[in-house]
Amino acid sequence: MIELFELAGRDPDFRFSPYCWRIRMAIAHKGLEPKTTPWRFHEKDRLPGAPTNRQVPVLVDGGEVISNSSRIAFYLEDRYSNSPSLFGGPGGEAHVHFILAWADTVLTAGLFPILGPDVLGHLHPADRAYFRASREKRLGMTLEEARAGRPARLAAFRQSLAPLRHTLQAQDFLGGEEPSYADYAVFGSFQWARCVSPQDVLAEDDSLRSWRSAMLELFDGLAERALAA
Amino acid sequence: MIELFELAGRDPDFRFSPYCWRIRMAIAHKGLEPKTTPWRFHEKDRLPGAPTNRQVPVLVDGGEVISNSSRIAFYLEDRYSNSPSLFGGPGGEAHVHFILAWADTVLTAGLFPILGPDVLGHLHPADRAYFRASREKRLGMTLEEARAGRPARLAAFRQSLAPLRHTLQAQDFLGGEEPSYADYAVFGSFQWARCVSPQDVLAEDDSLRSWRSAMLELFDGLAERALAA
Repeated sequence: MIELFELAGRDPDFRFSPYCWRIRMAIAHKGLEPKTTPWRFHEKDRLPGAPTNRQVPVLVDGGEVISNSSRIAFYLEDRYSNSPSLFGGPGGEAHVHFILAWADTVLTAGLFPILGPDVLGHLHPADRAYFRASREKRLGMTLEEARAGRPARLAAFRQSLAPLRHTLQAQDFLGGEEPSYADYAVFGSFQWARCVSPQDVLAEDDSLRSWRSAMLELFDGLAERALAA
Repeated sequence: MIELFELAGRDPDFRFSPYCWRIRMAIAHKGLEPKTTPWRFHEKDRLPGAPTNRQVPVLVDGGEVISNSSRIAFYLEDRYSNSPSLFGGPGGEAHVHFILAWADTVLTAGLFPILGPDVLGHLHPADRAYFRASREKRLGMTLEEARAGRPARLAAFRQSLAPLRHTLQAQDFLGGEEPSYADYAVFGSFQWARCVSPQDVLAEDDSLRSWRSAMLELFDGLAERALAA
């Protein structure tokens, strides 16, 4: 039995972390069914593993405790090497790091100022002060100030998707004919957006909508069935 | 004997096309020594292959004529499969397309308005009118207007390198411990910049400088020995 500790909101079934979604999808890709355990920011003592790690996702697999989404993904690839590959070999493993870096520095960083303010209302009351303080420090402005720039930021965000759009006009998934961990990593941010806000981050005519729909439908609609705003 | 048709300037030894550099490096990666043939924009009739293709690089290998840098790279991988791989397997081939799309839509597109005006003086006189007309149409402004915004564009360009910087702080090359076609594709634009302008597109303290130096030194300094501004 493997167990995944996931960030949850006030409603323990509200699971919205982009990094946890990467791993939920990666676990399903490997054909596994995890026990998922909700965790909130203030429950510092409830996380297994090194006391220095206070972040999810955390995976517990037998005696192993692994934290950090990328480390978990590479662990799954290695431990469940007979199941479908998440990376498609050594070149896929090397190249995926650029896609992960893009997802972090462009996708997640671009989306957070737009929809971050929407997260507050979903959080457990004991998490809200921590969330506001830590995220405002990272943003360099209040959540409300970030929100005020939404229309311009949303337009810039949509423009920043150009490399993703170009790629997915020529192939079904970043992984080629089948999704790879690169797809799950990028999709994690879109799923985060879908969970926290009714604002659609893609324009109505964006060709990326068909990729996003395909991702939502994978594994019997695993992501589509999630609680969303 | 393989032959590569490359874009050249007034000086036939001035080879500056980012897409030709991708292939020069890829050919060297495969351990081959091509004959390189200079070609200018106005020499439409001198290109082998389909008369509809009027762009370099074009590779001639025995009876095969291949144009388009990505098609050439995949051809080389397939034809010279016993030489070191350019992609590292199927996952590397799938994931490289995102990196190529990023190189086209962010890197090349971001650099051109900054240094494109510098290209004019290097061109064969018979190429200049074509270059100006086609590039100004693409830019939606004159080369001189593009140049006027250089400081702001250069700052934005350096910021857009974040995913590359993050990746190459954790691994030597995009390909991992050894360069892959992803490295050659991204390096092509840096080599273009180095050829056409004395303006360094990287700040003095940019951590990307060590990767760029390593790329310049590959294959006995193939790129470093090139004619540059």
